[in-house]
Amino acid sequence: MVKSWATSADGNRSDPPRNAGLRAALGVDLHLEPAGHGVRRGLTDALREAVRGGRLAPGTRLPSSRTLSADLGIARNTVADAYADLVAEGWLTARQGSGTRVAERAAEPAAEPRRRRPRERHRPAYDLIPGTPDLASFPRAEWLRAARRALAHAPHEALGYGDPRGRVELRTALAGYLSRARGVHADPDRVLICSGFLHGLMLIATVLRERGVRSLAVESYGLDVHWDVLERAGLRGVPLPFDERGTRTEELDAGAAGQRPDTGLSGVGAVLLTPAHQFPMGVPLRPGRRSAVVDWARRTGGLIVEDDYDGEFRYDRQPVGALQGLGPDQVVYIGTASKSLAPGLRLGWMVLPPSLVPEAVAAKGRADWSCGVLDQLTLAEFLTSGAYDRHVRAVRLRYRRRRDALVEALAARAPEVHATGIAAGLHAVLELPSGTEQSVVRAAAWRGLAVHGLTRFRHPDSVAAHRDALVVGYGTPPDSAWSGVLDALCQALP
Amino acid sequence: MVKSWATSADGNRSDPPRNAGLRAALGVDLHLEPAGHGVRRGLTDALREAVRGGRLAPGTRLPSSRTLSADLGIARNTVADAYADLVAEGWLTARQGSGTRVAERAAEPAAEPRRRRPRERHRPAYDLIPGTPDLASFPRAEWLRAARRALAHAPHEALGYGDPRGRVELRTALAGYLSRARGVHADPDRVLICSGFLHGLMLIATVLRERGVRSLAVESYGLDVHWDVLERAGLRGVPLPFDERGTRTEELDAGAAGQRPDTGLSGVGAVLLTPAHQFPMGVPLRPGRRSAVVDWARRTGGLIVEDDYDGEFRYDRQPVGALQGLGPDQVVYIGTASKSLAPGLRLGWMVLPPSLVPEAVAAKGRADWSCGVLDQLTLAEFLTSGAYDRHVRAVRLRYRRRRDALVEALAARAPEVHATGIAAGLHAVLELPSGTEQSVVRAAAWRGLAVHGLTRFRHPDSVAAHRDALVVGYGTPPDSAWSGVLDALCQALP
Repeated sequence: MVKSWATSADGNRSDPPRNAGLRAALGVDLHLEPAGHGVRRGLTDALREAVRGGRLAPGTRLPSSRTLSADLGIARNTVADAYADLVAEGWLTARQGSGTRVAERAAEPAAEPRRRRPRERHRPAYDLIPGTPDLASFPRAEWLRAARRALAHAPHEALGYGDPRGRVELRTALAGYLSRARGVHADPDRVLICSGFLHGLMLIATVLRERGVRSLAVESYGLDVHWDVLERAGLRGVPLPFDERGTRTEELDAGAAGQRPDTGLSGVGAVLLTPAHQFPMGVPLRPGRRSAVVDWARRTGGLIVEDDYDGEFRYDRQPVGALQGLGPDQVVYIGTASKSLAPGLRLGWMVLPPSLVPEAVAAKGRADWSCGVLDQLTLAEFLTSGAYDRHVRAVRLRYRRRRDALVEALAARAPEVHATGIAAGLHAVLELPSGTEQSVVRAAAWRGLAVHGLTRFRHPDSVAAHRDALVVGYGTPPDSAWSGVLDALCQALP
Repeated sequence: MVKSWATSADGNRSDPPRNAGLRAALGVDLHLEPAGHGVRRGLTDALREAVRGGRLAPGTRLPSSRTLSADLGIARNTVADAYADLVAEGWLTARQGSGTRVAERAAEPAAEPRRRRPRERHRPAYDLIPGTPDLASFPRAEWLRAARRALAHAPHEALGYGDPRGRVELRTALAGYLSRARGVHADPDRVLICSGFLHGLMLIATVLRERGVRSLAVESYGLDVHWDVLERAGLRGVPLPFDERGTRTEELDAGAAGQRPDTGLSGVGAVLLTPAHQFPMGVPLRPGRRSAVVDWARRTGGLIVEDDYDGEFRYDRQPVGALQGLGPDQVVYIGTASKSLAPGLRLGWMVLPPSLVPEAVAAKGRADWSCGVLDQLTLAEFLTSGAYDRHVRAVRLRYRRRRDALVEALAARAPEVHATGIAAGLHAVLELPSGTEQSVVRAAAWRGLAVHGLTRFRHPDSVAAHRDALVVGYGTPPDSAWSGVLDALCQALP
């Protein structure tokens, strides 16, 4: 058994605290396991072994001889001698001003970690897959300013484990914002912070399953990752029919009344919808169908899960507030910062019907699935200072210009291709002649564009008529590339 | 059905983009649902309803009449008139320089959200429950500086959905740090970022369950939240015996050999340990027992989960590196920033045996359980710049002073109470005369101290002899209060 030592900041009890504090401030921690050949040789061997084996990476700065000697409780000269030996052997380098470091290429080749470098063939030059906003427009400087203000005012207890619902500052700011900007009936006690839509959906699916719900209506078009989450939670997804005017929520009633038991809708206890901007088809849920689904939920005790994934981005004057405003006791509203700021923040929010709050909070708390408080506090400050509104309005203009350029390019160069779903959001649907979808996707890939056909978003059990179309996300490519992307896209179209 | 409008930043296409950008920058979003009584009255009614119903909270700033008129595509005077009407009615206030706002107490009493104010009786003045560090020493200014540097250098793609393992910058920085400071064999490909120990434990429990493992050995003393997580994942926790020298890992072999099938240890496929500093008893796992558990894992294919919850905080020279260094293919190492920085960051890390990487990454990715990238990038910068070492060494000195003061106070004023487990960590165990634990906990509570007895940390199935003791966390109270806390604690002791 190797005898082992570790370093610590406080090796020498007789040091006055001031010196100890200074040393602590200057030092770095180093764990060593010297073998027992006398102090100097043991230290030298242990250091050499740590370097040789790759545990201390090339370039790693070692503690000063003063620090390490104090940590280990041995003479400073002994440490200095050991360092000098290893410099002489080529394991370490010593340079005035940068201290003693592990030499570059000191590790033996076999010990170097092998990095897999995945060879990506045909990596597309531009990404038109919907779902990611323009990451270059994340307001870094504004965000840092908000972080500074938020941290300056946060109480110490904000940095602790905290409330599973999320920080009260953020829940309060969101309740105000969602109420004002999206017509949501919200109060901070019913807001639950989550790390994105999928997290929120998982929590709701868990609660529904615990309540005995076994199936849930979904839209004919959507994202398979959502359907997968529901399935893993034990909920069967039953697609609602879809027509030219959108999702036929009135079929829930037909299902509930048992008129068409063959649709599978008669037993559903909940429905997942994208009412403001159907994903990916782009139509808003019509007023009559909004009422129909809320009425269904009221009458049957069903739950509506509203995915307001791009509610901030609307380009025409036709208003589409949150469905939740029509039925705050029937709707779980879920929104995120993933489109409006950046997915990397991993911040989302749910507004829950009062009756669902205890179960959803318990499900979240049980899983210790909390979001970092610093980003929560920063987003709260970002919202209350007005920076969020300013940012959303600025990027909305940028996206609208991209959309306008897309529509104009199509009109000029591919007039037979009709763009729909363009009144809002970060993507458009380009309707294609029947039977051409796959060849257009391939032609686009050949021109360096990653783009999905509509088929990929169609629920496998959907009875909706098959349509050929492209789903074109315009959030991701940089502004400077957009006209080139449009050229390539138009060339790929039939 | 109410006809509804929404505002948007781009109402007037004929505006030159520069003006539109300016308006966008100054504006806020407001969702309105005016009823159809002519433009001015419709707008006035909708605004009044939004204020009356509480949707627009007192103090909310409304868009300027210029912004709202552009958004709605109506004359600016119409908006100004509607605002003036509502100011006259008392719903809004207008003040030079602060714009138009919702009047304080404008909402009708019935519409005000009722906030529950939980009455907390006997809320203790000081918290000695272990688990939370001194939140006042979180290095706010240093952290913000690191965040600024990190964001300045982050590529745009860092802000996207990203790798379920976590950001490569952080995985690389942690591999270097853990290798240097904790003796862990790490390379970035085997590091998985998680949001805390419990998250890491859940992921491992999920993987173990999928591999067919049904039971797992735990220590006789530990945290019930950990046991609960295992149980919810479908794993039965079987306590290992505990003696004066710590957890008897050699019993795993006895169990594996079928010598004592009555212990329940014969079938376990994994073991959860706190080798550096048993929680809460405070003893390190002895060298022979470290070897024994690694040998058991090698021979049986079992997995060791190492909870290195306070590995950074060691006050004596006896080194206790990570157990993982003895068996990188057998041990899942889990550490967090919760003790060294703050739990609110929700950042932890796992170093996985190579064979476990694909399954653990899949389990994490499936759940979309990612941590915010900004904190990840900041922690990476914090580690590589040396700020993490400086911080750990500085707080280690503070904690050591608290510990020394605790030991001195006990020696002077309660000499019959022996403190153990004090060589490391943020808590100590005070051994009490038999039968006094509950009365001491009550006496401490009476003096304003929240403190737990050892009984609460004992596994319900443990066969360890019952001991009376207090588990005293010294991380939480502020420095200034510490001597007063010690006074109260000594008075509560027998």
